[in-house]
Amino acid sequence: MSILALGVDIGGTSTKLSLVDRTGAILKRAAFPTQGHTATGYQDALVDAVEQLLQSAPYPLEGIGVGAPGCDPVTGYISYAVNLPFSAPFPIRDFLSERLCAHTVLVKDSTAAALGEKMWGGARQMENFVLVSLGTGLGSAFYINDKIVAGGHGLASEMGHTIAVPNGRKCFCGRNGCLETYASATGLRRTCQELMGQEILPSALRELPQSALTARVIVQAAGAGDPLAQMALENLARCLGHALASVVLQLDPEGIFLSGGLSNAGPMLAERVAYHMDEQLLPAFRSKVPVEVSWLGADNAGTLGAAAQVYLGLPVL
Amino acid sequence: MSILALGVDIGGTSTKLSLVDRTGAILKRAAFPTQGHTATGYQDALVDAVEQLLQSAPYPLEGIGVGAPGCDPVTGYISYAVNLPFSAPFPIRDFLSERLCAHTVLVKDSTAAALGEKMWGGARQMENFVLVSLGTGLGSAFYINDKIVAGGHGLASEMGHTIAVPNGRKCFCGRNGCLETYASATGLRRTCQELMGQEILPSALRELPQSALTARVIVQAAGAGDPLAQMALENLARCLGHALASVVLQLDPEGIFLSGGLSNAGPMLAERVAYHMDEQLLPAFRSKVPVEVSWLGADNAGTLGAAAQVYLGLPVL
Repeated sequence: MSILALGVDIGGTSTKLSLVDRTGAILKRAAFPTQGHTATGYQDALVDAVEQLLQSAPYPLEGIGVGAPGCDPVTGYISYAVNLPFSAPFPIRDFLSERLCAHTVLVKDSTAAALGEKMWGGARQMENFVLVSLGTGLGSAFYINDKIVAGGHGLASEMGHTIAVPNGRKCFCGRNGCLETYASATGLRRTCQELMGQEILPSALRELPQSALTARVIVQAAGAGDPLAQMALENLARCLGHALASVVLQLDPEGIFLSGGLSNAGPMLAERVAYHMDEQLLPAFRSKVPVEVSWLGADNAGTLGAAAQVYLGLPVL
Repeated sequence: MSILALGVDIGGTSTKLSLVDRTGAILKRAAFPTQGHTATGYQDALVDAVEQLLQSAPYPLEGIGVGAPGCDPVTGYISYAVNLPFSAPFPIRDFLSERLCAHTVLVKDSTAAALGEKMWGGARQMENFVLVSLGTGLGSAFYINDKIVAGGHGLASEMGHTIAVPNGRKCFCGRNGCLETYASATGLRRTCQELMGQEILPSALRELPQSALTARVIVQAAGAGDPLAQMALENLARCLGHALASVVLQLDPEGIFLSGGLSNAGPMLAERVAYHMDEQLLPAFRSKVPVEVSWLGADNAGTLGAAAQVYLGLPVL
């Protein structure tokens, strides 16, 4: 009998929902803005969105999977999410489970993306891979010896806060030089700003107000041949490639997947990351570890991954 | 009934052998110089040493475990070991197995040390830990999700060749700035040499010929209060601590173990490594991941780890 999982992807900008069958097909989707709510207002909006989506569900619901930043999968709380409308730690798993009478699992957003890739994407045959999610920040997930690495204290996967440049850019975490201040949508923008001062290359981007200088605009400009935008993207690829080289030398994964909004910069970005990664590998490792854009697509990876978490506990089909 | 494993630790300087019982006790040991043999001369010396040791074995032999650098545990060959007296790849596992009619397993030297730590040392209760072996080079082993990380292509654990300093010191691998050119016995010596030029600190080490400036001498000088030697050790601790911080942020291990000859620098070194590691961690990680000297001792870790590999395949006691 067919069953369904509901995947919920809570992001800083929007909350996305998908009804996903066991083959990874999305039967129905919905979304609403995460911002502009009080904490209880957001909770009601979330319950409404789920209920509305479930009304059109053709099969019974197996469970709800929620992917969110700054959450603790063990306790079921969202705690450290600066961009979400919760001022205090919120027990989202138990809240949804009770309000909707449905089995609910909570998982970190980058872990969700990795599990989606394992279940339905490019990592299906892999027992060792790394996923890097390039959004506002840099999320990561390590899948090693056929399991997500949770770590000894549930804290693993903070690759975004490894130091890429000693005494480098100020990070929102209070430290300097974190990888995500260079390799993320925000990092791309900051690189562009720096390059405008450092370089004398002409660029249409120089005519834009700072507020319009988004990662999307920079990626588009690079695609259209803007040399400053191309230089900024290349810097990002170099910085990420070098950080990934250390990971590859240590863990020797079968593949690396890029997800998140910035992975929309397409195979070009993945190719450049792979190039700079190979630059810092021992010869024996070169060209062995492919860097690919997530097969699930930046728009769907979040909800698919959250839904995958529901199916994971079930017997293999 | 009691059984024994023979652990063989093939190092660049000496080859050590231990008869080890299932509790990790060494009943008998032997050693001979690795250098000064032809390839066949070394093979004969190895067989002789094993046979002699086995003559005094009080219990039956379960198997032989061999730990060596540059080997492939799958094929059983030693291939890339520049410091060993084999000019061509040598099938050491099958050679010993046939000559001695004993079940033989081959394992990378740093993997052996980690398995010994897991079976009889400080990692007994851990499912996630990292071992760093500080010898002529820097060896590493990652034990994640209750298994050694072998990697997708059997290449994992080359932490020594991650780039610690972009465009830094020349490494024997042909590249620049590899971690082991800073964090190893050789690295300590190179740092001392550099500091003699950079600093005007007085130091007894300045009176030594280069050939006498060994890691052991530097560590002793540091212990006796020599400021230049102390500065060199502190630089090593900082470099290794910062590299480990990235590993901790990514994998969140329960502990880190230092083995190899340089770990004899004692708890002082481990403490300074932990200090510099914590410096580059997010607050949530700080003071959570202890850095300890291997419980097995630098002299025994190699043979114990190789013997552990024999017991690993057996039912748990």
